[in-house]
Amino acid sequence: MDHKLPRPLRGVITAMVTPLDPDLNLDEKGLERLVEHLIAGGVHGIFILGTTGEAPSLPYDVRFALIEQTCKLAGTRVPVIVGITDTSHKDAIRTAAKSYECGALAVVAAPPYYFQVGQADLLHYFKRLALESPLPLFLYNAPLNTHLWLEAETVMQLAAESNVAGLKDSGLKMGYFHAVREAVRDRSEFSLLVGPDDLLAEAVLMGAHGGMAGGSNVWPRLFVALYEAAAAADLNRVVALQQHAVQFDGAVYRSANPLRGIKCALSLLGICSNDLTPPLQPYSQQERDLVEKYLRTVDVLKNPA
Amino acid sequence: MDHKLPRPLRGVITAMVTPLDPDLNLDEKGLERLVEHLIAGGVHGIFILGTTGEAPSLPYDVRFALIEQTCKLAGTRVPVIVGITDTSHKDAIRTAAKSYECGALAVVAAPPYYFQVGQADLLHYFKRLALESPLPLFLYNAPLNTHLWLEAETVMQLAAESNVAGLKDSGLKMGYFHAVREAVRDRSEFSLLVGPDDLLAEAVLMGAHGGMAGGSNVWPRLFVALYEAAAAADLNRVVALQQHAVQFDGAVYRSANPLRGIKCALSLLGICSNDLTPPLQPYSQQERDLVEKYLRTVDVLKNPA
Amino acid sequence: MDHKLPRPLRGVITAMVTPLDPDLNLDEKGLERLVEHLIAGGVHGIFILGTTGEAPSLPYDVRFALIEQTCKLAGTRVPVIVGITDTSHKDAIRTAAKSYECGALAVVAAPPYYFQVGQADLLHYFKRLALESPLPLFLYNAPLNTHLWLEAETVMQLAAESNVAGLKDSGLKMGYFHAVREAVRDRSEFSLLVGPDDLLAEAVLMGAHGGMAGGSNVWPRLFVALYEAAAAADLNRVVALQQHAVQFDGAVYRSANPLRGIKCALSLLGICSNDLTPPLQPYSQQERDLVEKYLRTVDVLKNPA
Amino acid sequence: MDHKLPRPLRGVITAMVTPLDPDLNLDEKGLERLVEHLIAGGVHGIFILGTTGEAPSLPYDVRFALIEQTCKLAGTRVPVIVGITDTSHKDAIRTAAKSYECGALAVVAAPPYYFQVGQADLLHYFKRLALESPLPLFLYNAPLNTHLWLEAETVMQLAAESNVAGLKDSGLKMGYFHAVREAVRDRSEFSLLVGPDDLLAEAVLMGAHGGMAGGSNVWPRLFVALYEAAAAADLNRVVALQQHAVQFDGAVYRSANPLRGIKCALSLLGICSNDLTPPLQPYSQQERDLVEKYLRTVDVLKNPA
Repeated sequence: MDHKLPRPLRGVITAMVTPLDPDLNLDEKGLERLVEHLIAGGVHGIFILGTTGEAPSLPYDVRFALIEQTCKLAGTRVPVIVGITDTSHKDAIRTAAKSYECGALAVVAAPPYYFQVGQADLLHYFKRLALESPLPLFLYNAPLNTHLWLEAETVMQLAAESNVAGLKDSGLKMGYFHAVREAVRDRSEFSLLVGPDDLLAEAVLMGAHGGMAGGSNVWPRLFVALYEAAAAADLNRVVALQQHAVQFDGAVYRSANPLRGIKCALSLLGICSNDLTPPLQPYSQQERDLVEKYLRTVDVLKNPA
Repeated sequence: MDHKLPRPLRGVITAMVTPLDPDLNLDEKGLERLVEHLIAGGVHGIFILGTTGEAPSLPYDVRFALIEQTCKLAGTRVPVIVGITDTSHKDAIRTAAKSYECGALAVVAAPPYYFQVGQADLLHYFKRLALESPLPLFLYNAPLNTHLWLEAETVMQLAAESNVAGLKDSGLKMGYFHAVREAVRDRSEFSLLVGPDDLLAEAVLMGAHGGMAGGSNVWPRLFVALYEAAAAADLNRVVALQQHAVQFDGAVYRSANPLRGIKCALSLLGICSNDLTPPLQPYSQQERDLVEKYLRTVDVLKNPA
Repeated sequence: MDHKLPRPLRGVITAMVTPLDPDLNLDEKGLERLVEHLIAGGVHGIFILGTTGEAPSLPYDVRFALIEQTCKLAGTRVPVIVGITDTSHKDAIRTAAKSYECGALAVVAAPPYYFQVGQADLLHYFKRLALESPLPLFLYNAPLNTHLWLEAETVMQLAAESNVAGLKDSGLKMGYFHAVREAVRDRSEFSLLVGPDDLLAEAVLMGAHGGMAGGSNVWPRLFVALYEAAAAADLNRVVALQQHAVQFDGAVYRSANPLRGIKCALSLLGICSNDLTPPLQPYSQQERDLVEKYLRTVDVLKNPA
Repeated sequence: MDHKLPRPLRGVITAMVTPLDPDLNLDEKGLERLVEHLIAGGVHGIFILGTTGEAPSLPYDVRFALIEQTCKLAGTRVPVIVGITDTSHKDAIRTAAKSYECGALAVVAAPPYYFQVGQADLLHYFKRLALESPLPLFLYNAPLNTHLWLEAETVMQLAAESNVAGLKDSGLKMGYFHAVREAVRDRSEFSLLVGPDDLLAEAVLMGAHGGMAGGSNVWPRLFVALYEAAAAADLNRVVALQQHAVQFDGAVYRSANPLRGIKCALSLLGICSNDLTPPLQPYSQQERDLVEKYLRTVDVLKNPA
């Protein structure tokens, strides 16, 4: 069977959390349950080692074990794409090489996130990264974490590189999305994907190819259905499902770091543990109770809404 | 004829610029041409003395003359709503009283924009303003100018006040819009309007009642058509018109202050002059040439696209 | 007697609060007590209608009454300088004219605080303001409130205008202060004054001429003594008094708006009332109790420490 | 000879750049020249793997080689302290262990710099780090790079831990410094050090023990003399030398990343190469020419000014 990256890549590409054991090593059983949960829920791809995957907080041995195991577990059922964002350029390339070896289909990189640099520096940086990467590269606009924007003009210039496959935009501003979409209008193979759960549907209505919706870790069926409704321009269904997505986010994301809520919910579902890398800490019991109460009102394992 | 505020208020309520003469007094002829241009273009209302209207930079005599003249010119053809945002509470109330006298149908207020205050302070402030205003009050979330957010929870509490008619959101983040929409779901008379041109269509698709799209000063037919396509869930037409809106914005808004582009375009169309209050300055000749070049490629006076 | 602006202006120029009655009109008795308190405390000037003076929240009749009364009360005992910062250029000029008429010796202006503009716009704006002002103009760098910086290069260019008398810097970053000081090194008449209480001493040690220390409303003797110790390079005394200044600030400034603490303390001392313009609200009883407890540990009316 | 950490640590502890060869491996010859240059210039310590040391951009093998070599080269002549700031907690501990093995005397850690977390999380994080570190720990407030503040209250609580030796503050706001100093007043062994060149002198005048002044890589004699003048309360000399420091910064730091200027100057002096890790790029020829021109006006190798 032919397993290669669809271009453009479409659908819900879950920004997967990294299941960990209490010593913060990879929890292989939890990982297996999570991958099966996502595939059973219909997701169109798995994105590991992103922000939701706690990548910057993981030692390289854990990162590499995760790449190996996830690729093995997913097989050719869904594409695996891997975050290689790093403050160290050499380590970014090393992670890309590992991803290629293990059978991942693409890599994703945000700007290095320590030094403040300009757009010309970013253009230079990503051109080189695209050249050196053995796998197609998705750009990642993540200003909340990197404190830098990949401007629309910069994306347009990078989209002309043959190894640049698309953009994941987690910038939260749809005005930026519209400007990027206009800038890459003539690049039909270039994927536009959005990060946040609650912008998935409208972005797809307005021309995006899909999104990474972190909430799909917990409730893949909801976000897959929302994507499909938007892709089919079924606006009534979009509006009904969107209400569920907004309620899910309000109930599960109780702090600045959504992944705390996602891991809490997954542990309540028995899929993986609630362990987080420092400096992140699990929800308090009170927050956990509120998530549990919410989860009892919906059936995230079986139904889209 | 009965002239009262539709609740919810729907459609394109143009955030109108203030035509000025070179001495920065009201340009009455320009105002007349502009109001007729908007009504001929099909807009559903006129919002004066907002950010686009340069309100904070205008002395009160100019503000009051504008209220009088606009209400007189519009008559009962479209609702006039008036910005009363002010750092001085007494002057906000005075402007609301003047608006009532002249026949405006509602007022709009952003948080006072000098001191940093908390949500509890804003809640207290707006409750009192709603009580004291003789006209229904729209809240105005304008963080780019006021450097404060009206949080979704605050909007929800204020929406319970009978004299609070809606929210204009110019925050650029659709995630906030979704949270607010969820928070006011059971208040069927509460209007949700969005500021930026390029978010009008998607906001309406996702449940907004309309928007203030500053670009409708120049090209009312485009934004009215975009609103109508979205309200009718005609997605193909939305996507086609949205491309024009994004191109319009890219061509006309060449700085952080869109109103500089709007006045430049209106002066090129012969509708009103390009005079701006300090510290804003007109476009350079080079910027003006680019706007002129763009305007020659479209027919903003006759066609929606 | 000759009453004119010393150039450079030196010492503690109190950024005075505006005493108000419960209807938010000027409290003339409170004003008289406050002016006498300051002069008895040895301050070198009075700066009215700044941020601490709640200027943006006051209607013009209150602003004008304050200018008249303060100039009358101070007479030629200390210079009065007046904040004319305004979003409306015409009203800024009108306030400057009033200040001149009443006998004030200078005016102070921060950038207009609603629209985001660039340094070239600010340069143009302040050059014109300096030309039109009948009184010498102090520039005011107040980025916490205006969300704009007057860059060192801009200050240097403006310092070449004969009617520009100095800079009040409330930017909190001493690195900026050093850059400005270097930029205006050859302008011996140009005053460098700093805003915050806790930077007064070190700024004077490093070459400033004085400051506006809002805390000197309450405890003029402390800040005058601190200024004098720094001006005399008496480092042991500076370090001892600085500790009092830092403790004062920690005890009295319990929120983002120091003026709330200053008015609370002044009302506890019986000098003026605690009334504040919306959206600011007085301290809670609990906060007030903490200020009262602190005030019992020091003797702000008689001693510097 | 007894080689242990002075508590409090005082003086100029140069935040050293990392000399690299064109392949971005450690340049051992350049490192040797640089260490000798610093010690000849009289610095009181060497701080490696900070922001100026490009630590986040270096693979661990380069970091570890740098620790080994610097400790060997410095011997017991000056203390070496090592930055262990890391997004991965396990790797931070691993770097601390390596530092201990090699003979460094302390480690320095800023908050992990990817996820936004609260003060309670930081308190928890640093308490654990202090417990696990085999060497005394300096806290590092670096909000420009980490986008988080270590609040004064948090520092005060951490200062009570016996293994917490001090704070390096690179926050640029002296108001914060004063609040921290007041908060740790009774901890006589706790070092307060400041980051930026141009705040070194005034911080020492106001009670700091020293600073990391990156400019001392290039001109150690100037910053050592400035420190000594401030420590001796010789204000005339402070003011004269400070002018040189401000001029140095203005001439050498021509972008948001001072280390670009430092490496440019060091390469002009023949001490080490100008190679930088991605995404940072060397100065343009034009910028380099301006640095060269400036360096010809001073004698950084022989004189303090």
